[in-house]
Amino acid sequence: MQNIGYFNGTIGNPEEMVIPLCDRSVFFGDAVYDAVMILDQKPFTLDLHLDRLYNSCRLAEIPFTMSRDELKKEIHRLLPLADMGSTMLYIQVTRGTAPRKHEFPADAKPNLIMMIKPLPLPPWNKRASLHPVEDLRFQYCNIKTTNLLPNVFAAQKATAAGATEALLHRGDRVTEAAHSSILMLKDGALAMPPLDELILPSVTRKILEKLCAENHIPTEVRIITMSELLEADEILLCSTTKNVIYVYDVDGQPVGGKDQALAHKLQALFADEIFKETGVRL
Amino acid sequence: MQNIGYFNGTIGNPEEMVIPLCDRSVFFGDAVYDAVMILDQKPFTLDLHLDRLYNSCRLAEIPFTMSRDELKKEIHRLLPLADMGSTMLYIQVTRGTAPRKHEFPADAKPNLIMMIKPLPLPPWNKRASLHPVEDLRFQYCNIKTTNLLPNVFAAQKATAAGATEALLHRGDRVTEAAHSSILMLKDGALAMPPLDELILPSVTRKILEKLCAENHIPTEVRIITMSELLEADEILLCSTTKNVIYVYDVDGQPVGGKDQALAHKLQALFADEIFKETGVRL
Repeated sequence: MQNIGYFNGTIGNPEEMVIPLCDRSVFFGDAVYDAVMILDQKPFTLDLHLDRLYNSCRLAEIPFTMSRDELKKEIHRLLPLADMGSTMLYIQVTRGTAPRKHEFPADAKPNLIMMIKPLPLPPWNKRASLHPVEDLRFQYCNIKTTNLLPNVFAAQKATAAGATEALLHRGDRVTEAAHSSILMLKDGALAMPPLDELILPSVTRKILEKLCAENHIPTEVRIITMSELLEADEILLCSTTKNVIYVYDVDGQPVGGKDQALAHKLQALFADEIFKETGVRL
Repeated sequence: MQNIGYFNGTIGNPEEMVIPLCDRSVFFGDAVYDAVMILDQKPFTLDLHLDRLYNSCRLAEIPFTMSRDELKKEIHRLLPLADMGSTMLYIQVTRGTAPRKHEFPADAKPNLIMMIKPLPLPPWNKRASLHPVEDLRFQYCNIKTTNLLPNVFAAQKATAAGATEALLHRGDRVTEAAHSSILMLKDGALAMPPLDELILPSVTRKILEKLCAENHIPTEVRIITMSELLEADEILLCSTTKNVIYVYDVDGQPVGGKDQALAHKLQALFADEIFKETGVRL
């Protein structure tokens, strides 16, 4: 089976599966989600992703009462069905099924959607490019919700411009990409934007922070402006579906390429971390 | 039949109906919608709502190719099934069914969801109340999409505060309510906020504007601040599910009540408009 779908305990082909018309994700995008890289049927940093998923539920006030152990049991029903190699586990928790009405329904129970699909990981040396797009999203970007239309628009614009990803910015302030984080290497340090309501707390970034601490690589958390980014030693593009790749081009203007040693070191450390947890060498 | 559901030509009970798991409204809120008041099976201002629905499709680049005549034919299959009295027709167009990927799918065909359900209209003299909520939404509020989580949060806060609706404001600027428009009567004129990307172009407002023009009631379009609103002669709360009601209370502070003659006149003109089109006197 190439693609695996799951809805409230039932497993099937996601392209043939259905969900209730009145699930609140359909009318309101009233759902949170997360995504996990799976290598040879072994999830990488599953607990960090579940931390974020449960935190998204808490922030969105979705009363998801399934315990982490129960959820892991359901995930472990799917893993043996996944292909070997790299796949992605997608997990979505919706506020439940109820007649359409904005307010939280009194007696709805959250629905659980999961999918596993092949994940074609880009090589570590992929020369990524960015296309700047004004960030017009809401101020709940710290919650990983399915209110993703502005991200869809931005990703579409980036693809149309021939770029790997959108470089989202609020005026001069760099926020993130349409479905990735943007970090910067400057003067031997890893610079990261503040974790406020304008960006998603990236799991890949969290692992990089830990690796920097363990390896005496300085980090700093601060607002990154567009002009600083364009002058960065390296721009890193991070996500669960890309791990850590670097950017060489913003709308045709060459960027980075000034500290490949540190960029490669971070990638190597990240690859070691993946190997330690999954036994797979990417 | 009390509630009627529709998905791509199939009619049923919405509480039992299903849609594809991979419909893009499920993963991205990648859908637009509209809602129409139906009185004794006759829609009110259907064309204005279809204008807005097709405009939302255009702005969101959803390639909905069904013509207005075809769509009306589908709507007219449902109307004889609707209860007499007041009901609401809900119409949602999604970008279609496709494996989850942010970018627009190359070959997906939009899906059409419709529902009709009872619409308990508030009486014209309902004494509505508002609860202020900071407007943290995106800057695509002029498109009627299902990315509605901030509206859900705001409506929930208003209900928890015992109010009829949320009074959304960006700093000092009044935008609209969670699922209504906010207009203001001041010095004998109807004041309305500019139709930019921060608010939805309200159909109820459009009808009021026309009625004002026909009846020599002055109108003005301008930014309305919170302090101006609290000092308004009357605050009007407008939507397809409420028509035009007035507000007497913002978080316990009495407001309006200084030009009931004009508020009542607008309501009477609106009721006449409804009667002219549907033959129903509300």
